[in-house]
Amino acid sequence: MDQLLMIPGPTGVSQRVLKAMLKNIVNHRGEEFGKILEETSEIMSKIFKTKNESYILTGSGTAAMEAALANILEEGDKILNIVNGKFGERFMQITTTFGGNSIPLKFEWGKAADIEKIKETLEENEDIKAVTVVHNETSTGVKNPIKEIGKILNNHEALYIVDAVSSLGGDKVEVDNYGIDICITGSQKCLAAPPGLSAITLSDEAWDVVESTDSKTYYLDLKKYRESKSLKPPETPYTPSVSLIYALNEALKVVEEEGLENRIKRHKMAAIATRKAVKALGLEIFPDEEVSSNTVTAIHLPKGTSDKEFRGLIRKKYGVELAGGQDHLKGKIFRIGHMGNVTQRELTVTISAIELALKELGFDIELGKGVSKILEVFSS
Amino acid sequence: MDQLLMIPGPTGVSQRVLKAMLKNIVNHRGEEFGKILEETSEIMSKIFKTKNESYILTGSGTAAMEAALANILEEGDKILNIVNGKFGERFMQITTTFGGNSIPLKFEWGKAADIEKIKETLEENEDIKAVTVVHNETSTGVKNPIKEIGKILNNHEALYIVDAVSSLGGDKVEVDNYGIDICITGSQKCLAAPPGLSAITLSDEAWDVVESTDSKTYYLDLKKYRESKSLKPPETPYTPSVSLIYALNEALKVVEEEGLENRIKRHKMAAIATRKAVKALGLEIFPDEEVSSNTVTAIHLPKGTSDKEFRGLIRKKYGVELAGGQDHLKGKIFRIGHMGNVTQRELTVTISAIELALKELGFDIELGKGVSKILEVFSS
Repeated sequence: MDQLLMIPGPTGVSQRVLKAMLKNIVNHRGEEFGKILEETSEIMSKIFKTKNESYILTGSGTAAMEAALANILEEGDKILNIVNGKFGERFMQITTTFGGNSIPLKFEWGKAADIEKIKETLEENEDIKAVTVVHNETSTGVKNPIKEIGKILNNHEALYIVDAVSSLGGDKVEVDNYGIDICITGSQKCLAAPPGLSAITLSDEAWDVVESTDSKTYYLDLKKYRESKSLKPPETPYTPSVSLIYALNEALKVVEEEGLENRIKRHKMAAIATRKAVKALGLEIFPDEEVSSNTVTAIHLPKGTSDKEFRGLIRKKYGVELAGGQDHLKGKIFRIGHMGNVTQRELTVTISAIELALKELGFDIELGKGVSKILEVFSS
Repeated sequence: MDQLLMIPGPTGVSQRVLKAMLKNIVNHRGEEFGKILEETSEIMSKIFKTKNESYILTGSGTAAMEAALANILEEGDKILNIVNGKFGERFMQITTTFGGNSIPLKFEWGKAADIEKIKETLEENEDIKAVTVVHNETSTGVKNPIKEIGKILNNHEALYIVDAVSSLGGDKVEVDNYGIDICITGSQKCLAAPPGLSAITLSDEAWDVVESTDSKTYYLDLKKYRESKSLKPPETPYTPSVSLIYALNEALKVVEEEGLENRIKRHKMAAIATRKAVKALGLEIFPDEEVSSNTVTAIHLPKGTSDKEFRGLIRKKYGVELAGGQDHLKGKIFRIGHMGNVTQRELTVTISAIELALKELGFDIELGKGVSKILEVFSS
């Protein structure tokens, strides 16, 4: 078995999807590629649950975050950035980079965004142009209430921007139903394609703002993406990552074959199983459990161990790659990504590796106790 | 035989390089990937002929063009943009997008940039912060004199920015010798890797400017790339395109095995052979021949034919994909890309297809006359 990649993205990619990249490069402005691009965008819109078009960007999730803001911002515009983790902070930094006036609404890392506070802040700042929120905070394993935030925003002019990079395909995201104006995602998380692509979809209201705003970026100027995509055959403004689009196309077909609802259910079971398993081993979940993510579980490091020792042992001796904490959580938590293709098999391997490592580090562990929880959840 | 891709990028990728992408994704912040990233950057620096570090960006050539300008520009800075084709214009547009004061120095499409005019403009504008030039104008098949421009810039403070997207690996580019401060390239041209990655290298002088300038982009903030790459193991600031970096790594090894000088010589032979062959068929080269590119040949469309009819026939009946003209050259020229892995075999197929199409369209052609030129050049 190769090293098992259990980080919260990039995730392991199936041979079927990798093999799609063996097809040679074609003219990126020809009919054959136009069809693939169109089909990929269409399936992406279905997964976003939107009637609007989706655009595939040659760049990672951060490129899509940049595209979301740099196309709607005028100097000094107020942007409400909901921040309860690293990616929420990133939206704040991007806002500032492009001359926006960031109004950060910060919550403790590990807690979800508080609806009442958002409501208040919106009422105090009627001229807020857009609100950014990260649906699934990969850094803390917290899921933010994007449906409820959408309801509040129904009563406000502000555009609603949601980062669904590490949730789309693994948790419920209903762009049109939730009133999301700009939604972004990445190829390398729950969709289980290789990293390097991201996608973005915009509502008519968002397009109105984009069309009347000079893009603050050239590479990610969405007006150009829209224009190129309306050509016959559809194109991208600059050379796209042809091979990765082959792979994403195949990965999205896998999502369709599994069925989006089934896929989300599988992710949810993986999350429940992971939490039960690590708790059975005496470990402590980092975030509030009721807002814990479907796609990544953040866990306090076992008392008395260092991140290097704990994750190093699991990686080197037991062949499982876990993620550490980011920023001030470095050395305090570790994270298990259970997104993409993860089933009971990968979780069994992962939990067994954690059990053996804990035993070796001197913890009083009843071997198999964590693994049994994985099996119980998946047999239910 | 699959459709033969003879456009000026993306170019056909060998099975060896495509297969490198079958390797599964690894942790992009781990040791294994760090080694691959470091090695890829090191070979890239050798090909750039620079002692400085190279950085791999997850984005196409245009992303690297944007990175080159958006990291050095302050509002109102004068940038001399040498423009004699579509990509020279792009530098001008990027300059404006990021608040620069573009001083465009325009030359007719199909002619090279004039050294004397550049000298004059620099003398008239002592406060020019940077000069941009496109080495190989893919849109017109013209090669600009980057070595000579470098000599002039020795006497000026301005940073020297060179787009070597469609020349690096197929024509002489000596970053340090020519005094280039910022040089960029793409994965999908002469390096024959799949599209979706670009690379950038900066001199100490360029870094001084970058370090004292607030980046105008977040995704392409080069300070963050430098910082991440100095970590142990080396990283990228945001999730990179792991699979494409595997492919680029393999493609660069192919370049090293062939030897850069040999590779450039092969490209030069391909260019000479192509020009001789199309002239033997009565076709007319679009640019001044003495400044004609090593990697792409632009040719006037045969009189009385339309682009759609001519290239359509060659594509559909004879399986060769050629490029059309761009912007005002649409419907006036066609282009043969002879970059990357192109040898006498691909050129023979291409010219034979052109011969058959010309015959079918009623031109008085002696079949084999073009192909014989290809063979003559390659047997010499």
